[in-house]
Amino acid sequence: MTTDHAAERDLVLTRLIDAPREKVFRAWTDPEVLTRWFAPAPWTVPRAELDVRPGGASLVVMRSPEGEEFPNRGVYLEVVPNERLVVTDAYIEAWEPAQKPFMTLILTFEEEGGATRYTARARHWTPEDRAAHEAMGFHEGWGKCADQLAQVVATL
Amino acid sequence: MTTDHAAERDLVLTRLIDAPREKVFRAWTDPEVLTRWFAPAPWTVPRAELDVRPGGASLVVMRSPEGEEFPNRGVYLEVVPNERLVVTDAYIEAWEPAQKPFMTLILTFEEEGGATRYTARARHWTPEDRAAHEAMGFHEGWGKCADQLAQVVATL
Repeated sequence: MTTDHAAERDLVLTRLIDAPREKVFRAWTDPEVLTRWFAPAPWTVPRAELDVRPGGASLVVMRSPEGEEFPNRGVYLEVVPNERLVVTDAYIEAWEPAQKPFMTLILTFEEEGGATRYTARARHWTPEDRAAHEAMGFHEGWGKCADQLAQVVATL
Repeated sequence: MTTDHAAERDLVLTRLIDAPREKVFRAWTDPEVLTRWFAPAPWTVPRAELDVRPGGASLVVMRSPEGEEFPNRGVYLEVVPNERLVVTDAYIEAWEPAQKPFMTLILTFEEEGGATRYTARARHWTPEDRAAHEAMGFHEGWGKCADQLAQVVATL
């Protein structure tokens, strides 16, 4: 993908987290751990089911402060333990199309001076969807979740 | 996927081909063989590049009788040798989004009385795309290609 394409369609969050990458990867792949940080407080995650393998389904239910629940479904496309996870919402299971393919999430976990360089790249199908996601508060929401992620990883 | 969803979004071609499924699978995965049957004559396939593994890219160039070339790009999602292939045009490589996710192609090769039950299921993201594909001549085009496929397989 050229830089131009990436700039048009990707939203990126990156953080250096003071923990080995095995723990950061676990926070993304162990459902019990994921529920503790995945939703920006005061939102919560009452339930997560993660079948972490290429073609496996991911379901994360988010609950608003008012108690309304929002299921997020996706399918893993690529799984490299402790290094890389790719998941898309274009499918709700293998290979049932979602109503609207919105994004592919590319997560990388790199060793950097004893810590973990954690990068979440949300790659959208269109520049319009990227803009909508940014307007919905991508940077604030994912930033808050990254703080929560770092806190939870410190307890593992 | 429920039957209703399938009826709304899938187009299906199935044929019993008098050959072992290894040969039918090879006709889909060996670029040199694929070029001999993949385009309905008088269209041709001047070039095919198939990286047959989950996440691998597929490029098949089709040439019209007038000499105009049309590249078809996709990415393999699932590969079970001699049994099953899943490829989508939602990506042009892992994991670069295509301009428009149109369909996921689910190919199955089943042993049936010494022959091969070959089934190609084109699963679209929307009922509108399914209808457009059908109107573009899915049944005629894929039927003609299935005839060509059977003829080429007989020479392997």
